[in-house]
Amino acid sequence: MDAIARIERALGSSLAGASVPGAPPLLAAAMHHAVFPRGARLRSRLCLAVALACGDDDSDLSDAAAAAIELLHCASLVHDDLPCFDNADTRRGRPSVHRAFGEPLAVLAGDALIVLAFQTLAAGAVRRVERLPVLLRIIAEATGAPFGIAAGQAWECEPSADLSVYQQQKTGALFAASTCAGAAAAGGSVVAWRVFGERLGEAYQVADDISDVLSSEADLGKPVGQDGALARPNAVLQLGVDAALQRLDRLAAAATAAIPPCRGAAALAALTLTETRRLLPKDLAQRAA
Amino acid sequence: MDAIARIERALGSSLAGASVPGAPPLLAAAMHHAVFPRGARLRSRLCLAVALACGDDDSDLSDAAAAAIELLHCASLVHDDLPCFDNADTRRGRPSVHRAFGEPLAVLAGDALIVLAFQTLAAGAVRRVERLPVLLRIIAEATGAPFGIAAGQAWECEPSADLSVYQQQKTGALFAASTCAGAAAAGGSVVAWRVFGERLGEAYQVADDISDVLSSEADLGKPVGQDGALARPNAVLQLGVDAALQRLDRLAAAATAAIPPCRGAAALAALTLTETRRLLPKDLAQRAA
Repeated sequence: MDAIARIERALGSSLAGASVPGAPPLLAAAMHHAVFPRGARLRSRLCLAVALACGDDDSDLSDAAAAAIELLHCASLVHDDLPCFDNADTRRGRPSVHRAFGEPLAVLAGDALIVLAFQTLAAGAVRRVERLPVLLRIIAEATGAPFGIAAGQAWECEPSADLSVYQQQKTGALFAASTCAGAAAAGGSVVAWRVFGERLGEAYQVADDISDVLSSEADLGKPVGQDGALARPNAVLQLGVDAALQRLDRLAAAATAAIPPCRGAAALAALTLTETRRLLPKDLAQRAA
Repeated sequence: MDAIARIERALGSSLAGASVPGAPPLLAAAMHHAVFPRGARLRSRLCLAVALACGDDDSDLSDAAAAAIELLHCASLVHDDLPCFDNADTRRGRPSVHRAFGEPLAVLAGDALIVLAFQTLAAGAVRRVERLPVLLRIIAEATGAPFGIAAGQAWECEPSADLSVYQQQKTGALFAASTCAGAAAAGGSVVAWRVFGERLGEAYQVADDISDVLSSEADLGKPVGQDGALARPNAVLQLGVDAALQRLDRLAAAATAAIPPCRGAAALAALTLTETRRLLPKDLAQRAA
């Protein structure tokens, strides 16, 4: 079974628990809308790729870690799209959760997805309970305060913020958690895999900045031009297109160089290249290639 | 050290992690505002009382379970008070989190408190890792979908809802989780302690309904009359004051009867009596006594 099939199966099985008879049907539908149909599943594929590179000795736990990371990513998008943040009407080419289900259900769906992530992780760890505390810590640190996604998002509410700190917490933290959790789920070295995730997260953020300025809503399936409109830091707006592209190239190379020696190294290098190009408009992706 | 001192110490130490140097200061302040100064800490006291009744053989884990439950309760209040739900300006006699810090930080503080709850639980389980999966499951089931707090709250978004299902999920689930988690943290029988928590949760909900209709905002430190204004089910509005008081008495007696034989049984019976009376206006509490 390929990686994406494993991830979709794990997510489907987690979400199925939310729509059992007796559950409030709109909440279950809102949670489903937030997770399916799939986006790129980049963070969970990264987690699973690292778990495979580390031996994948308990595939249930690898799948659970990948699913937990994807659920937390989806939860952050649901809350990020809310009127009090980005007020985004679309996501993955469809109405955002609050546009489809209203604001109360969007808040609750995000909350319930966060809880489900930790529940999924615990359920996947039955045969490797000793790996659960470190996995929980890695994933919690990447999503909460003081340095996870919630903290990154909270810098938007401060009078001033350091660009690299903001991006590291809002985006980079979950990338680093994806590689670290993949390693931890398979009994590999968390320390050895952190830098690769960090560099890839930084590169992804620059690609995301470029696409926000230069792509169309039709291409991305979500609003563009948000950084300029909301006065948020953006590499293109700060450095210009050429310098941003150069920065993307440097970071992608640094990410590739940080892949520890392992059987899956070539696949991970290919994933790094593809994913740091995927968001770019076609002409720019060719220039960067 | 008495129960409340243990709970405040555990919560203080959890929250301290959110306000380290480099963290976004307003998020840390919003999280602190949501948790301190303390409310009744009823759910965490219940958890700790049951852990003590079961032997409290790992006080760090008992404290972590109690703190996790309180953090999740606080998170649910922060999101519950948001403009898209109750739009409550006050909580515990002070501005609600979104009134003090704005809506974006209230959403993020709730999210970060949910994450912190699971992180706190994991950190407390270092010496008893084998108890972590069941604790996580108990606490996650009580807070997420399909039958936890988020589900209870989501019934407010459905065209119709069953009163007892709504109250069981929105309030009862975390009471039952408090007794079950207390037992699980101390290696006791989860099954033996569930009914006590369920009955106490039902009794508490009726007391809360009575206070919403008959108490003043000055007494409670939060808005009253919300159920009538928001067309939510309420035992007094449905049954009248006398029948609601009789129901409260029956449920409190049923809770007391469900306490398993143990050394702490008298203390738990006293807690049940005090806490099901505490919310009532003074004259009614005397009538009920």
